[in-house]
Amino acid sequence: MKLKVKVLGIDSGGKPIVFLNRYDAEELGITALGRIRLKSKKNIIAIVNLSQTMKKGYVGINEEVRKHLKLKTEMDVDVDISTFPKSLQYIRHKLNGKKLLPKEIQEIIKGVVEGNLTESEISAFVTTLHTQGLDLDEINWLSLAMVNTGKKLHLKKKIIVDKHSIGGVPGDKTSLLVVPIIASAGLTIPKTSSRAITSAAGTADRAEVLMPVNLNIKELQRVVKKCNGCISWGGSLELAPADDIFVKTEYSLFIDPLLMPSIMSKKKAVGATHLIVDIPTGIGTKMQTIEDADHLAKNLIELGRRLNIHTHCILTHGEQPIGLTIGPALEAKEALEVLMNKSNVSDLIEKACNIAGAVFELSGKQNGYALAKKILESGKAEKKLREIIHNQGGDSNIRPNEIKIGKFYHYVKSKKNGYILRINNNEIVEIARTLGSPKDHGAGILLNKKQGDTVLKNEILFTLFSENPTKLSRAKTVLKTQNPISVGKKIDVVIHKVKESPLLEETFIIDR
Amino acid sequence: MKLKVKVLGIDSGGKPIVFLNRYDAEELGITALGRIRLKSKKNIIAIVNLSQTMKKGYVGINEEVRKHLKLKTEMDVDVDISTFPKSLQYIRHKLNGKKLLPKEIQEIIKGVVEGNLTESEISAFVTTLHTQGLDLDEINWLSLAMVNTGKKLHLKKKIIVDKHSIGGVPGDKTSLLVVPIIASAGLTIPKTSSRAITSAAGTADRAEVLMPVNLNIKELQRVVKKCNGCISWGGSLELAPADDIFVKTEYSLFIDPLLMPSIMSKKKAVGATHLIVDIPTGIGTKMQTIEDADHLAKNLIELGRRLNIHTHCILTHGEQPIGLTIGPALEAKEALEVLMNKSNVSDLIEKACNIAGAVFELSGKQNGYALAKKILESGKAEKKLREIIHNQGGDSNIRPNEIKIGKFYHYVKSKKNGYILRINNNEIVEIARTLGSPKDHGAGILLNKKQGDTVLKNEILFTLFSENPTKLSRAKTVLKTQNPISVGKKIDVVIHKVKESPLLEETFIIDR
Repeated sequence: MKLKVKVLGIDSGGKPIVFLNRYDAEELGITALGRIRLKSKKNIIAIVNLSQTMKKGYVGINEEVRKHLKLKTEMDVDVDISTFPKSLQYIRHKLNGKKLLPKEIQEIIKGVVEGNLTESEISAFVTTLHTQGLDLDEINWLSLAMVNTGKKLHLKKKIIVDKHSIGGVPGDKTSLLVVPIIASAGLTIPKTSSRAITSAAGTADRAEVLMPVNLNIKELQRVVKKCNGCISWGGSLELAPADDIFVKTEYSLFIDPLLMPSIMSKKKAVGATHLIVDIPTGIGTKMQTIEDADHLAKNLIELGRRLNIHTHCILTHGEQPIGLTIGPALEAKEALEVLMNKSNVSDLIEKACNIAGAVFELSGKQNGYALAKKILESGKAEKKLREIIHNQGGDSNIRPNEIKIGKFYHYVKSKKNGYILRINNNEIVEIARTLGSPKDHGAGILLNKKQGDTVLKNEILFTLFSENPTKLSRAKTVLKTQNPISVGKKIDVVIHKVKESPLLEETFIIDR
Repeated sequence: MKLKVKVLGIDSGGKPIVFLNRYDAEELGITALGRIRLKSKKNIIAIVNLSQTMKKGYVGINEEVRKHLKLKTEMDVDVDISTFPKSLQYIRHKLNGKKLLPKEIQEIIKGVVEGNLTESEISAFVTTLHTQGLDLDEINWLSLAMVNTGKKLHLKKKIIVDKHSIGGVPGDKTSLLVVPIIASAGLTIPKTSSRAITSAAGTADRAEVLMPVNLNIKELQRVVKKCNGCISWGGSLELAPADDIFVKTEYSLFIDPLLMPSIMSKKKAVGATHLIVDIPTGIGTKMQTIEDADHLAKNLIELGRRLNIHTHCILTHGEQPIGLTIGPALEAKEALEVLMNKSNVSDLIEKACNIAGAVFELSGKQNGYALAKKILESGKAEKKLREIIHNQGGDSNIRPNEIKIGKFYHYVKSKKNGYILRINNNEIVEIARTLGSPKDHGAGILLNKKQGDTVLKNEILFTLFSENPTKLSRAKTVLKTQNPISVGKKIDVVIHKVKESPLLEETFIIDR
């Protein structure tokens, strides 16, 4: 069937999509979300949307189709019904409770990356993985398929180390310390990291305050060759791109069944041989109990074995933010001060030296923690970070007080004397995001007190920073119904009372 | 935040959708598939798509948003982030294995109908229902929620009867006989039916050969008042519209977890008090075993009890088509000939009289089967159908040979002597659809032989009809790899041999 083209001028994140009048769709024997093949000089399979505004005899095409076929409005194009892709058939296998085979998984991931599966179909796949679970074979094959459908780093080193946190704790700027500590000991660490999706800052957002992070693969390889390490945003590298597509579905559903393949495919793609995974544990993190965290650790280690990545895990306390700051600029500043030995943020230093130390020991060095501490205190780690900043195109002489923090601020003070009993991670994140994080780098929160500290009435608990007065006042409004830092006596036992069926406020941190 | 409007001129099946540049989305603190509130004189919540082609400072809007807010290109509109809808939170409850509450189900169905849930989220809901199942409470509440979010018939009759087939058998034109038989006995039967989605013809497609079927609620009420019955397409009535949205997701996934709420909500919406459900059973239907069919029957009866619809079920043989014809015009012709007592299609007559008889007995009449048979043989049913045709705006004098059948035809002959061992429903449907059914009313298949018949070499097995020579030759190509009618000796036991891991051809009939 021949149709005339109408270029719609919209793009769909890589997915070829066309719009058809109902009559033409019926003539083709196709319904919404079916597939058609468009043919001019080249071929493409596109997903069909029915549209009342599309004229009979016309096919509306998105940018993906236009670019592939080099079409213009009013040009003719051959259109024919196409069968459902094989990947969809394999998704159905999983829907019906069957274990997937390697070639089936490969085909599904290919369908996801090439845009031949609709949002609905991808969502059905992710949902089924969540409700029916996947075993280690499937996780392994998914990881490999996600590696194989993306780009890879080729660093030609015998040992390549890496660290990863499954995330969930606000203010976790550990990587900004760990990477230079490790790289200054001569080990290769091509660190890629994510931006915030639902959190207040990802490592890429924090690092971006100090230097450009949108490296491509060539640039990354050059930086690592010079400095032994880098701190790059993963999204510009196209490593395991399927993950970026899955995450779009997962975040609004608050599910994360692809956690393990997501982590391990990216590590495999950079060529890691030795890996430390940080698993923050406790209320307000992704792993609520030590049992859950241990179970994840066991599976990550076995998955690492199958993928030839020697993996150890570290369970860390994650019930309150790491360090005293939340928000890209505040966190970058705090990390820089610690590296310069100008600030003694004990939990942050402790965490960084434990993780760097574990990396050292995993790759054959002894007394890892002491070695990491020594490197940090010697100023070598600071020097290494500045070297990385320089090679990624930033200002290597940057001083902490040159980092711009939002000029609108507000102190939140304690209403009574007592102890800091709990800090609510989720509320801290929500307030930081309301203040403008991560988009506004200067927005965020400074914690003037942390768990166990004593506090007097009218003493400052925490400070809000924003680049914009409207956002600051919005955050103050949010604070009226929230209590991110609980102050009380050590004997207080009541959390809260439940009297009528409440509408539960749920939160979910998917950032990887 | 103020943005300028760009009208995109595309519609999205009722869902308000906007397109934003990545920069503006970040400024709003929103990612793809998040929600924003647009405000001019009225408000609307729309789902966000990120688009590289959208200019900074502009928001691209679809027809749903344009119509609601009466916006034009270059107009200003206020845009703000909106939280995820409550319905999404409730979907997450089900995702995590929790039983849903009535108000949660009501909110989800409202979200589906009002377009506040994305395709992904609806798909996640349907998938979870499939993998985790739903209990009779949830099925009941879903049915009620689907009724409450749509229109209803108000016929002011004490007894309103209905019949429904769960479908899956090609050529099942039973309703075209049952409705006039029942209506001519004085019972009220406001029959609404569906068009084909994946089958060769729905009852609405068959009836449309004889009369208009796109009635609105007023017209339907008028016809039923005059004739006691009607044969209307359900889609134009907006009864339980959530179902039409769910089915879009379900059909490409080959799942049907909402089968029961789908049936019962539409029956409740027309006000049915007594209902007979036909459950075709056997290989090639939706219910593969008698146990499965009995289980469904049990649940439908209990669900009916909760909804105040007195329900009985009839399990019928569904392993081969009903009657001799498949395709809208061929089937309408066959039904008309049987009603005129010009043709003795025994399985069709038997099925229609059993179902009509069951309706009679359920509503208090005795010897239902005999009564139905008598009405059919007396010509009263034919008279009643012609009355309905007239009142729905068709030609009540229509003769069978005036019904147009595709003029391009092809005989398929037996290659050997033997018996008809099996007829493959799925292959029959695929061939009929390739011939042009249901869109081309005149396309379809005439079965010259049915199961158990003897056949000689070169005798005609079945005849293909098409309105279009290209489609006829395409169907002939399909036939090269298929064998819809198996001829063999009565002692043949082998179905087929499996030697290497085959790519399974799956089929699925979701038509309701």
